[in-house]
Amino acid sequence: MFDSGVGGLTVLKALIAALPDEQFIYLGDTARLPYGTKSRETVARYSVQAAEALADYGVKCLVVACNTASAVGLPGIREHIENVPVIGVVEPGAEAACATSVSGHIAVIATEGTVRGGAYQEAIIGKRSDARVTACPAALLVSLAEEGLCDGPIAEGIAHHYLDPIFSRQGERVSKPIAGRHLGIPDTLVLGCTHFPMLAGAIRKVVGPAVRIVDSAETTAHTVRATLAKTKEQGGVPARRASVRFLATDSVERFVRIGSRFLDRPIAPEEVELVDL
Amino acid sequence: MFDSGVGGLTVLKALIAALPDEQFIYLGDTARLPYGTKSRETVARYSVQAAEALADYGVKCLVVACNTASAVGLPGIREHIENVPVIGVVEPGAEAACATSVSGHIAVIATEGTVRGGAYQEAIIGKRSDARVTACPAALLVSLAEEGLCDGPIAEGIAHHYLDPIFSRQGERVSKPIAGRHLGIPDTLVLGCTHFPMLAGAIRKVVGPAVRIVDSAETTAHTVRATLAKTKEQGGVPARRASVRFLATDSVERFVRIGSRFLDRPIAPEEVELVDL
Repeated sequence: MFDSGVGGLTVLKALIAALPDEQFIYLGDTARLPYGTKSRETVARYSVQAAEALADYGVKCLVVACNTASAVGLPGIREHIENVPVIGVVEPGAEAACATSVSGHIAVIATEGTVRGGAYQEAIIGKRSDARVTACPAALLVSLAEEGLCDGPIAEGIAHHYLDPIFSRQGERVSKPIAGRHLGIPDTLVLGCTHFPMLAGAIRKVVGPAVRIVDSAETTAHTVRATLAKTKEQGGVPARRASVRFLATDSVERFVRIGSRFLDRPIAPEEVELVDL
Repeated sequence: MFDSGVGGLTVLKALIAALPDEQFIYLGDTARLPYGTKSRETVARYSVQAAEALADYGVKCLVVACNTASAVGLPGIREHIENVPVIGVVEPGAEAACATSVSGHIAVIATEGTVRGGAYQEAIIGKRSDARVTACPAALLVSLAEEGLCDGPIAEGIAHHYLDPIFSRQGERVSKPIAGRHLGIPDTLVLGCTHFPMLAGAIRKVVGPAVRIVDSAETTAHTVRATLAKTKEQGGVPARRASVRFLATDSVERFVRIGSRFLDRPIAPEEVELVDL
């Protein structure tokens, strides 16, 4: 699996929980992060380079654990990497949102690149033609998660800044389609960036208990498990616990320090190898 | 001049004001931003590449309008670019801080890369051996400035988060050296990142009126003017107003949208050329 940095470690955490006997290689392209503010062409090129580097390790499944790369990089990756299933985080998130939402009115917060690329909007409408999607870029939430400011007044203030325009329109309730039109607020919120599950507590406080929150890390883990089961590839060499190897394109020290928080277990510097793409 | 992105446009703005007859080429390495979280080696390599690209235009002076690149990239650039004065933003900022501070107790806020590199600390102590430097990374201020959230409760909340530990220690006043020791809080704050002048209003509210704020954009512009005057290079081909050419390594659209705020005048898409380093 690869991500632009440490955000994808929330997906790795979910994958380890779902597939405890597998061996994982996690590549963080930390020298070129963030992908979220870069152009479509640049992200697509970086994604193919990262995927090719991982294919050299003989992987049986490739997870694109980055929303921006999933949104714009999948076709290019699938062209270059043959005979290996390639799974992004956008499709599973969109599918879960469509299954979860009652009204079909779904909000997505993500990086600027993901929102502007329109991948969630397309994937959701493709699966559920009655859906209405409200997508909003929420760049500061990425920096907040990396700074470790995941709760408290600053995190909640910034969550309000992005989410109030979507969820706090005066006098409106959770959307119920009336004659096929959605008049209220969304009933489902997709966390369309792998950093955002770190802020789930603050986000929940702001949107209230009625809104369903879809975390694409968990839904992606289910898709990967189902894909491996289908191809009978699950397990392989059984391990007592999931083994993980980390590759980073820059600053092992920062990867270890911030990544440990995202993975929710300590990463040792000797587990991380510096690589060049 | 070059910067990792749009932050250096605050320096360009100061340069245009100080040298209205010059021709400027501004390179934003937007495909590889931010430099502030990357390792010393990576930033040094990127800096040399950016400097070499600009040297090909036959510039008479090269300004490194990025604190992180100034902090770690100058020796490498000076090795590769001969016969052109190379001016960073750290030295002028440090000099202004030493001249401004009465007590010699100086605070610096900057990116993680700049603070960890220790360039401001070294430059200040090198100029004023009695100085004491309190340096603090303030990464979120970069994202805030790029999001345009330059004032209001979120900007002030985050400024409090970084600055209160330095400036709001209960019962302490602005530092006066007693027998050579600094016991109080700093009397001077260096904005050691080119993004931070955008937040000067919020920062001023938080530190109060007694603290002197040093903005290295202005001090760098003075140094450039003095350097050109010394080498009799000022002016050259007189222009009715400063002419500027913009180069960016990614996303012209984003450069135009966010850069216009930083430069404080509209940048037209046709003024920006996409280049590869």
